Amino acid sequence: MMKFNAKTETENIIEFIRDYYKKNKLDGAIIGISGGKDSGVVAGLFTEALGKENIIGVTMPCHTVATAKSDAKLVSDYYGFKLVNFDIGNVFDTFKEELANLGNFSKEETENSDINLKPRLRMATLYYLAALYSAVNKKKYLVAGTSNKGELYVGYFTKGGDSVHDISVLADFFVDEVIQIGEYIKVPEKVLYKTPNDDLSNLSDEDKLGFTYDDVKRYCDDEVNVDEKTAAKIKKMHDANLHKFNIPTYRRNKN
Amino acid sequence: MMKFNAKTETENIIEFIRDYYKKNKLDGAIIGISGGKDSGVVAGLFTEALGKENIIGVTMPCHTVATAKSDAKLVSDYYGFKLVNFDIGNVFDTFKEELANLGNFSKEETENSDINLKPRLRMATLYYLAALYSAVNKKKYLVAGTSNKGELYVGYFTKGGDSVHDISVLADFFVDEVIQIGEYIKVPEKVLYKTPNDDLSNLSDEDKLGFTYDDVKRYCDDEVNVDEKTAAKIKKMHDANLHKFNIPTYRRNKN
Repeated sequence: MMKFNAKTETENIIEFIRDYYKKNKLDGAIIGISGGKDSGVVAGLFTEALGKENIIGVTMPCHTVATAKSDAKLVSDYYGFKLVNFDIGNVFDTFKEELANLGNFSKEETENSDINLKPRLRMATLYYLAALYSAVNKKKYLVAGTSNKGELYVGYFTKGGDSVHDISVLADFFVDEVIQIGEYIKVPEKVLYKTPNDDLSNLSDEDKLGFTYDDVKRYCDDEVNVDEKTAAKIKKMHDANLHKFNIPTYRRNKN
Repeated sequence: MMKFNAKTETENIIEFIRDYYKKNKLDGAIIGISGGKDSGVVAGLFTEALGKENIIGVTMPCHTVATAKSDAKLVSDYYGFKLVNFDIGNVFDTFKEELANLGNFSKEETENSDINLKPRLRMATLYYLAALYSAVNKKKYLVAGTSNKGELYVGYFTKGGDSVHDISVLADFFVDEVIQIGEYIKVPEKVLYKTPNDDLSNLSDEDKLGFTYDDVKRYCDDEVNVDEKTAAKIKKMHDANLHKFNIPTYRRNKN
């Protein structure tokens, strides 16, 4: 396995952001700040690249615990960028009220829909604010994505939710590498070493998956192995979620 | 230019849908029915491919005129599939109420954000209902996309909105070809020959663009030409929207 150089990668990411922004005449970034490591590291990288005055962090609670918001504030306080709060709880509730017009559905029937509605409302909120603050501040803001390589490999994201963004800087790094980058740019420790969860099901991501992201990394590395059962689980999820990357599209008859 | 054979293409699309569904053990389709030609043709094609009992059409008004809903009903009545109404007006209004917590913004400042929030809420609604009816009816529903080739070429769609779907059957056809397919499968005439608009700005799509989709077709065809000014407009919009197809992503240093 190749040695990971957090300093080099961090510097290259910052250069990558600056180059893209300069080339496309852009100014700032809107970043959803969950209080977890990925968004903390992304916020740090964009602040280093663009300056704190060009970053707007957004917390988007949805009937969720207050620690997410206070952990997000640890990040914005440390890097000095503006943090705004947009509570999507009422939007979510209004959606559910409208749904009642279609019938009475059980908790089991709506569970999967409810879980994925939240990241989709968050995506819509981030894009709303990006266009709004672009108009208000006369700057061009992009929505920065926070997905890392392990999540992407197994497709652990919501189509039309966190998968929709304008620029992606962690997509080629596994979680241990994200942490090393975070250590290099001094993301607050409470945020950087937090166990990731989806903020919805009270289970950690890894509990739900049945394997760890370190397993995914080992699985993706030709030189290392994971046990057969774990490998089968990872392969199954990867294959089942391939459709999230590639929309089947009819192409016309060329004869 | 190649002669267009509506019968062959229609039959091939239906076969394409059936093959994909069979291969992936899927059952039905959720389709947002705007009352316009694209969604009318898509609804007809999926009904032919999967049977009316496997199609659910969805109208999603947002403070919009009643004709959209009654035109959608022309389509569902003709093909015989279930049509449900999910009014996103209250969801939209609740979102705006939350926004007021961030400040007072002028109509000009929120205009672009408002326009694009609607297709994003519609996308979230379609995916909500797809997962819900999959659970309720013990069937697997996909969200069917309705974008055509001309719209895609110039990037006339909302990222995270109508661009997010699970299967796409009109993406390789220009609007005149979509109409010919619609004629072959007998989409109600009022719907099929309607002037497209975004249901938001009271302008037709083509008025807003400053060129017609026939211009885009001619521009894309090597053998035909459009005038220089129109060509420049089309090229400019195509180039400006390329970012919607390709998220810039940092890749690690390989040295």
